[in-house]
Parts: sequence; C-alpha cells; structure tokens
Amino acid sequence: MTSSPSQGDSVRSGHPPDSSRAATTPTGAELAAARLPGRILPPRWSPGPNDEESLDGWGFRDSHFQVLPNESVVLAGGRYQLSGLELPDLLPWIRSVLGVDFPVTDVHESQYPAEVPAPRLHAEFLSEIRTFLADSAISGDPRIRLRHGHGHTLEEMYAIKYERLERVPDLVVYPDTEEQIEALVDAAGRHDVCLVPYGGGTNVSEALRCPADETRPIVAVDLKRMNRILWIDPVNLMACIEAGAVGRQIQEQLAAHGFTLGHEPDSVELSTLGGWIATHASGMKKNRYGNIEDLVLDVRVVTPRGTLSRATALPRESVGVDPRRWILGSEGMLGIVTQAVVKLFRLPEVQRYDAMLFPSFEQGVAFMYDLTREAVPPASVRLVDNLQFQLSQTLKPKATGLRALKRKLEKKYVTRLRGFDPQRMVACTIVYEGSKVDVESQDRAVQRLARRHGGMRAGAENGQRGYQLTFGIAYLRDFVMKHYILGESFETSVPWSQVLTLCAGVKRRLYEEYAARNLPGRPFVTCRVTQVYQTGVCVYFYFGFYHRGIAEPAQLYAELERCARDEILKSGGSLSHHHGVGKIRRSFLPRIMSEAALEWSQEVKRAIDPSNIFGIANQAIEAGTAARTSIEAG
Amino acid sequence: MTSSPSQGDSVRSGHPPDSSRAATTPTGAELAAARLPGRILPPRWSPGPNDEESLDGWGFRDSHFQVLPNESVVLAGGRYQLSGLELPDLLPWIRSVLGVDFPVTDVHESQYPAEVPAPRLHAEFLSEIRTFLADSAISGDPRIRLRHGHGHTLEEMYAIKYERLERVPDLVVYPDTEEQIEALVDAAGRHDVCLVPYGGGTNVSEALRCPADETRPIVAVDLKRMNRILWIDPVNLMACIEAGAVGRQIQEQLAAHGFTLGHEPDSVELSTLGGWIATHASGMKKNRYGNIEDLVLDVRVVTPRGTLSRATALPRESVGVDPRRWILGSEGMLGIVTQAVVKLFRLPEVQRYDAMLFPSFEQGVAFMYDLTREAVPPASVRLVDNLQFQLSQTLKPKATGLRALKRKLEKKYVTRLRGFDPQRMVACTIVYEGSKVDVESQDRAVQRLARRHGGMRAGAENGQRGYQLTFGIAYLRDFVMKHYILGESFETSVPWSQVLTLCAGVKRRLYEEYAARNLPGRPFVTCRVTQVYQTGVCVYFYFGFYHRGIAEPAQLYAELERCARDEILKSGGSLSHHHGVGKIRRSFLPRIMSEAALEWSQEVKRAIDPSNIFGIANQAIEAGTAARTSIEAG
Repeated sequence: MTSSPSQGDSVRSGHPPDSSRAATTPTGAELAAARLPGRILPPRWSPGPNDEESLDGWGFRDSHFQVLPNESVVLAGGRYQLSGLELPDLLPWIRSVLGVDFPVTDVHESQYPAEVPAPRLHAEFLSEIRTFLADSAISGDPRIRLRHGHGHTLEEMYAIKYERLERVPDLVVYPDTEEQIEALVDAAGRHDVCLVPYGGGTNVSEALRCPADETRPIVAVDLKRMNRILWIDPVNLMACIEAGAVGRQIQEQLAAHGFTLGHEPDSVELSTLGGWIATHASGMKKNRYGNIEDLVLDVRVVTPRGTLSRATALPRESVGVDPRRWILGSEGMLGIVTQAVVKLFRLPEVQRYDAMLFPSFEQGVAFMYDLTREAVPPASVRLVDNLQFQLSQTLKPKATGLRALKRKLEKKYVTRLRGFDPQRMVACTIVYEGSKVDVESQDRAVQRLARRHGGMRAGAENGQRGYQLTFGIAYLRDFVMKHYILGESFETSVPWSQVLTLCAGVKRRLYEEYAARNLPGRPFVTCRVTQVYQTGVCVYFYFGFYHRGIAEPAQLYAELERCARDEILKSGGSLSHHHGVGKIRRSFLPRIMSEAALEWSQEVKRAIDPSNIFGIANQAIEAGTAARTSIEAG
Repeated sequence: MTSSPSQGDSVRSGHPPDSSRAATTPTGAELAAARLPGRILPPRWSPGPNDEESLDGWGFRDSHFQVLPNESVVLAGGRYQLSGLELPDLLPWIRSVLGVDFPVTDVHESQYPAEVPAPRLHAEFLSEIRTFLADSAISGDPRIRLRHGHGHTLEEMYAIKYERLERVPDLVVYPDTEEQIEALVDAAGRHDVCLVPYGGGTNVSEALRCPADETRPIVAVDLKRMNRILWIDPVNLMACIEAGAVGRQIQEQLAAHGFTLGHEPDSVELSTLGGWIATHASGMKKNRYGNIEDLVLDVRVVTPRGTLSRATALPRESVGVDPRRWILGSEGMLGIVTQAVVKLFRLPEVQRYDAMLFPSFEQGVAFMYDLTREAVPPASVRLVDNLQFQLSQTLKPKATGLRALKRKLEKKYVTRLRGFDPQRMVACTIVYEGSKVDVESQDRAVQRLARRHGGMRAGAENGQRGYQLTFGIAYLRDFVMKHYILGESFETSVPWSQVLTLCAGVKRRLYEEYAARNLPGRPFVTCRVTQVYQTGVCVYFYFGFYHRGIAEPAQLYAELERCARDEILKSGGSLSHHHGVGKIRRSFLPRIMSEAALEWSQEVKRAIDPSNIFGIANQAIEAGTAARTSIEAG
C-alpha cells in the first residue's frame, strides 16, 4: 500500500526517439527562417483483430468478469492491468456491502437479444441511398439495429437483456464521406425519414434511445468509417480529425508523431470525437489539456440547412454568433459533426502516477481544495471515498509469499502506526504529466499539502492501478447484473462549498429512499471527486442494489436515481458535469434553466431543422413532426 | 534602455494586509470543518469626480495630448505614467515617418458636435416607460444621443467631428434593474421600437452605429447604472457582477478583497462586463486568466422571448444546447446581458514587469514561439515591431543630466557593442503574475529562450512603460486627427506558420495601395504580437496617413483598411481576434463562414427576435422589420 519514494519517482519519457521528434517538432529558428515541416498525413487506421466490441455489454468482447470455481472473480482477456488476476475478495465484499448473501450460482440469464421491433421499411428512401452508398454500408441486421438504439445506461442495458426496447433504428448506414452524409440528409428531408448520428454508442443519457412514438423510419448514421486523421500540423499544433475516430485511435495515431490531444474521458477506448463534441465531454486530464470546448478550434457539421464550415481554423476568434458553439452539447438534434480541428500537445516529457492516502474524505477534499488554491494541480487528481477505496482493495489479486508479507506490513503500518481507520480512510490517485521540472514542482506541492491534511504517500504502483482501474471496473456493471445486482454511475459538478454536503446528502437520501421501500439488504452508494476546478469539482457516484424478487428493478433504479438527482440539485449541484441531458435527465431541465432558455432551444431547433430530420428528441425537444406542430400550437 | 537584473527583480506583493486576507481566503481545513466565510457584498461604486469621459474623443476628459510652444507634446492630466511628460521627439518623428513636414499650427478644427439628426419621438412609448423609469433615467440630450450612436472606430470619430452620423438613437435610457429592462423590451415590442444595448461605447466594429434606414424609433439602453458587484464568493472564487460595471471598477472593487478577474482588454478603464461578453473579448493577461469565454460561468439576458437565466452558477456543465453560449459575440442583436457570474483569482503574490530586446522581429517571433513550446508563458507577452519600438522611444521625456548620460550609454551599448540595428531591433514587454516561485521559473525560461534568439534584457522599467503605454497612446488618435492625420488599429489572429508572412504582407499591401493612389508622403504601418497561443498569435496593426488635401479621407481610410483585411484573410488570418464583426467587417463574413453558417445565424435571430426589437443589424443581420421580411422572402 505504501512505497518508497524512489518507486514513486519512476520517470518515463513520452517522446518518441529523437529522429522522429526532430521531424515533427519545429523550433522558433525554423519558424523565423520559414523552414517548416509540412503537415503529416497519417495512414488510415482500423481496429485490431481482437478489438471487436460487445453488442450486449460494455467494451470489448475479450473482456468480461467471470467467476472461477473457487468463487474468485477474474476479468477475462489480457487487455487491462486488471485482466487475468484472480480476485478472491470481490464477491465476499459485495455480499457484505449489500447485506445479501446471494449464491453465485443463482444467475439471471440474459435474454439478449430481447425481441427487436420489426423495421419500418421505406423503399423509396432505400433505393435512393443505394445510389450513393454501397451495400456494405447499409445494414438491416436486427442486432446491429438494436445496438444503434441505445447507449450504456443501466436501464438500456437491462432492457436489451431482460426486457425490450420499444423502438430501434430501422436501418443503419455507414457513410464514408461528408458528401454521402449531405446526400443522406437531403434524402431524409424529402422522404420524411429521421436520422440519428451514432458515434461510439457509449452515452449514458439515453441520447440514442429512439422515441417510442416516432412513426417515421429511423436511420442510424454510424460514423465509424469516417475516422481518418486528415492532417497533423506540427508547427501550429493542430490536427483535423474525422468525427468517427475513437479515442484510443486518436491517442495511438497522434503518439506515433509525438503528440496527444490529452482528452481522456473514462470511455476513451470506445467513444468518438464527434460524440465528445455532441455531449460536451470532459477528460480525466483536463487540468493539463482542458475539456472538449477548450480543445476544439473548428467543426464541420452537416445540418438540414446546409453544411456549417469555416474557411480556416484559427487560434481564437471573435466573429459574432458562431454556429460552432451551438453544436457543443447538441446531442444529435441539430446535425452530424463530420470533422473537427483540434489542438494538439506534445507528449509530456514525464508521465508519472502517484497515490496519497488520507484519514478521511473530508481531509482529502480539503487537500484538493488547497491544491487548487496554492499549486498547479497535476493532470489528473481523483479522490475516492472509503467504500470505493475498499472496492479498489478487493480488486487486488491474492498475494502470496513476500508480496503478501509486504502488503500485510503496509496495512499494519497504515492502520496501526499511522492510525488510519480502514472504515474511514480514502485514497487520491494522481497522474503527473509535463516537463520534468514542472512535474517535480507539482509533486513537491502535492506532498506538502497532503501532509497538511494528514495524508501519506501510497506510491506510484497504487496510483497507476487506481487510475487504470477505471477501464476495468467499467465491466463490473454487466457482471453483477447477471447476479441480480443493478449498479450504475451518475455525476454532477458542484461548487467547493457544497461538496461535502452534496456527497453526504445524496448518500443519505438514497439510503432513506431504499429503506422506505423495504428493499433487500442495503444499497451500495459511493462517490469520488474526479475533477477539480478553482470554482468546484465534479463528483461521480456509484449506486447499486440487489434486486432478486423485486418487480421492474430497472424502473426502480431509475426512480432512485431521480431521487439522487433531486438531492443533487437541492444541494447546489449541476444536472450533469459531462454526461449531458439526453432523455434521462430532461425532466429536470425546467429546474435549472428559465422557461425562456428552454424556449430558445426549441425555437432554434425549429428554425434549423423545421421538419425535425434529426428527431432523436433529446433535451427540451419533443419527438416526431406531429409533436413539433403541437409545440408550435402551444 | 537596459537595466541591472536587480531592477528587473523588483517584487511587489499583490496581497492586501494579512488581516483582510485571512477574512477572504478560506483554507481546505475550513472547508472540511464547514467553517466558511459568507459572500462579500461590496458597496455601490461610482466613478470618481475626475472620471468624466470625453464625448468627442477617447477616454477621460482630463487626458488629451497638447502641443507646447516648443513643439513638445504632452499628455494633459496626471492619470497615466505618460501624463505630464514633455515629449520633444514625437512630432519630428511623426513627420519623418509620414514623410510630410506638416506645420503644427495647421489645425483641422473639430466641428463637434456635427449636426445631430432630429429625434423621432414616440409619445405612447415614452409615456409608458415613464411609468417605470424616473425622469433622470431618460435623456433626449442631442450630445448624449450622439454619443450612444457610435463606438470608437476612426470613421465614427471622424464623422462626429467633421461629418455627421445619419442616424443616432432618438432616446437614451438608464435602467437600474433587470425588471426595468424587461419592461422596456416588453414596451418596445408593443410600440414597434428598436432597442440598442450600450455598455462602455468603446467598440471598434461600428456595432453601435444605427442603421440609416431604421425608420422605427431607436432607444439606447445604457447599462451604466447597473454596475453593482452583487456578491463575491471567496470560497468558490466566483463573483456576480452586473453587466454595466466597467473594467477599472471591477479591478478596484475585487482588489479591495484580494481578488482579480484578470480580464484586461486595452479598453479596461472604460469597457463593461456586458460589452466584453457581447463582443467576445480578450484580455492582455489571458495567458494566466483566460479570455472572456473562459471566465464567464453564467449570464442573465433579457431577450424578446423572455429572460435567460439559470438556477445556479457551476464550475462546468454539460447541459445540452446552452443559450448562454449563443450570447457570446451577439453584439446587441439578441438581447441585453444584465449580469454574469465570473471566475475570480486571488491577486498574484508577485506582479513584475520586464522587457527584452531582439535584433529583429523574426527573432522576437521565434522567441515567442519557443516560449509557448518550452515554457509557461508569463501573464502577458507582447512584441512590437521596429516602427512601434521607435514610437515608444519618442514617447520618452527629454532626459537631462545623469539620466541623459545613462540613456546615451545604454543606447551605445545596445547598438554598438551588441550590434543591434536601430532600424531593425524590436522589443518584447512582459508582465509576470503569480507565485514568487512560478514567476522566477517563468523568468528563467524567458531569459534562456531570449538568449537563444539573440535577445537581451531591457528591464522592468521599460517593461512597465511599454505595458502602460497602451493606455496613454489610445489618446494619440484624436490628437493626430487635429493635424490631418488619420490613424487607427485593427487586429487578427493567425496560426504561427503564417505570422511573418501575414505581417509582411499587410504592410506591403498597404504601402502598395497607398502608392497606387498617389497619396501624400508615406503611410504609417506597424504591428505588434499581443497574444500568444500554442496554435498561433493575435497581431495588432496600426495604420495611419496624412490626408490634407484628400477628399473624403475617412472613406479612404476605410477602403484601405478593407484592403488590409483582404490581405489578412488571404494570409490565413481571422476576421477578428477580439474586436468582433459589427458592421465594419460584416462584408467579409461570407469569406470565412459557409452560407449555411450565416443562414443559421439569421434563422436564430428570426426565431428569437421575430420583430427585430434588437435591430442594431450587426453581422449577417439586416436592418429594420421590412428588411427582415425580405430576407425571409429570399
């Protein structure tokens, strides 16, 4: 659990070898002499042979949790740091936290694919799009259609396994060019077809869930073939990237030339640039690189009123009411983002993980507050509460021999000698990125401020494990669902002064609501602070419970999540820090925006998309062309 | 010109005394214990007795350049560092640069106020607004009406002195509350009156110029009485400020509690928070504090469709298409910003000026490029070209005795020993702000990178003088205008790779256009790089010429400025980095945005303001209700 400082100081250079570095990182002298390298044109990228994604669960097919005969749990495959490790403590810990001694043999068998609604065909539209799309770019496969009709909310995933989605796209198309998308929008307008842009399908806002009362044919426009990095400009640190590029591809292809975009949402392996723009996303390393609105310089969007585009991408402009800004957060309702020019950063000289332990959540939050006040916070600083800290401990493999001894001694040191209470202590994982000098300076500040709040170093190994765990534990939801446990995350942002009240309030509220319903055992509620700002933080909650014997458990989950959101809003938190609104949070919009603000968004939608081609009906926009008329009449 | 390093190291603490500091800067420990200070409610602020603003020129009445009998020039008053200094070199230098030996006695007498159009009265509207506005909040004074009909472009200032404005507001009102503004908008809608929001009146985009063909009564809504800082939240580093607060007030009132907004446009003395939002402004210290879009967390706006408002201001959100974002850059066309919640920063521990000299502009740019690549740029870094460097030297008072000797020796050292060519050398002024440690680290990087590009330190005194000169030289335009010289600035942003080409191209183009017209003497064209980004820079140009004997000189100036803009766009520059579009740059919009993007902005305007109450007709929006119908018909 602890480590010597030297372990925490392991430094790796993010730079590629010097030869390629020279090719891609011009200097001021070259600028002055106008001897500058040209744009880099990376080759086309395709997912690896093992990168096939699951249709009925989170992530990649090669990765999913399994129970071994000894009741240890293991994440299959070799993709993650966590993969392949036997985890003996996880199941006992889940049982104890939920207060339910469920037998692991009692499996809620998935019915996937639950019945897929029959497609509403539209011969004229289909024959028209066949004139510009190859057969391979058009799919009517029911499982593919189903997958394009949902994101990754608990309710949606439960529905595809145990219930059904009432409405899914009738067709899925895979355009390869902006011209094809323009032709699609044009054809959709003439044939009264509804289009839904589709990126990585990882949203947790029901933004992709099709309105049940949409009577027109619905066509999902999957951007996955539009994933080219069109150019990298090493002089001006910009890149032009198609909207369908997924995060891991962007990371790989930019790193090959010594660059990074720095945008790392938890879904970075699977989500796309276009999706980040449409949901107004945030990345885990935003302290260093900024959020999506800080990274996007230009965007091209095919809309019912033509294609929004600009002559050139520029560092910063004041050019009036700029339609580019309206696309951020548009959640598929105003058009299809086809490409964007983004800022780049050189790969950091140093990337280093660390972790700090604190006696209590309050002390951890106090540390983070002082960190934003008195220092430059590292690229990523995340604080888990005690329950989540415990979870992370259960995700350690069984230790034997020296390793077991070391762990025991560490634990003894922390709890006995340092007096940390295992039922109260929390952990903060840190990722440093930057020059050696900057990272050292940030590290010194972290150590100084952590000491002030009773913190102690837990070391690079724990830091890296904590940070990387994010990717592995995303698979837990589907695993526990098989065992009658529903669990899911939701998040908010909140000013510093309300952080502790909000975290405590949401937990209390969920315990009370749970108790009031006489539900089995105890709910699992835990939170972590994932982002810090000068003005406040982002808080991420996990909430779960055992539902064996409860009718309509997904609806119950949704109901309780709405209670939590009510408590969040009452505590001064936001509707969402980075997940967006979609359909799952739309009913709360009148509580956060004035009537005029909501009316504005409706008016803009009507003005830009008068026949509601992009009829996915998120936020304050209602479904269907008929519904639109009734809004107008109102 | 040079200084010993110790001079450059003078450090001042920006913090108020410890007692007040303790009251306003809570700690993490206080956060954890929930013992937090409450919001600070600053008292109402009013301009000082000497703060009366000129109606017929830039800035304050107490400040304007005068010629002494010995032909030295002096800035009257005591407001600026430059004020009261006898400047013997300025006039001779202007004559030599323009190649015109104009006699200083040949004065182009101002006709201000040139004829003010008669007001178009509207008795019903007037009697209605008198029910909620006091008499003192309504003005029909012709000079006041005139002042509200323009900003500070050269053409506008020339017009009020020597020509006329065809159309100015018919009435000026001074609401004190948001409710009064809501009532104004409501009344304007019912009485077919056009409303124009007015902040500091400092725009340089003709955003306030009234459309000549607007037949409806035009009422300017001056926000100056709505200038309260409603609260300062010392825990969450936010403040809620009314839109009419001017920059210097915000600076003063926040500094009294140890805070700063950090937003310092060149117009910071006079321009308002609401104006910054409406023009999408940038500040000189944006490297540390960000531009206006980075600073504004929430905004309230009275619009024809009701008042946009939010339940609470939050660190960062993803809440869909957010009407707040549409207000940035709206230039008075969509509504009236009444207040905003902004981020605050603690006053920096250290504020320090410095200046570096470089042998050439190219080397200075190369230095700045490397600075953005290899270091954290100081709060402000600005590079003037040789001509502007010369201008700054002429703005030094006559030196005598030891001071003269020192200056002579410095000059000799720079030009003879270091070999700097007085006709090529340039200067970079730097403002450091931050902790002592951060500033020292930035300073070391600056010195190291400057040496790489042949730079040498010119010291804190020159740095401070260079930075503060911005405020004094703003008065030069009105001074030289009296002597038949038209001069004005314009700006752009451009990627790094195009900086040198763009600067050279604009200068060459203006010389060529000037020569092709057989105009007197030579034009004055100079530039400075005022902002750096990873992706490029902001470049600010000054352009001037002597016009004695030329018909319609202001129109000529506008024509030549359009040539410069054409060259800027051809060179890959932006339409504007921070001044906006207004009317002066609207004709270029189709060159930078696709037809669809312009149509979007028109559609949104129609949807939000169907009877064009906010009829100031900037950007792609045409004037009048009739014109709007014709757009719809088209």
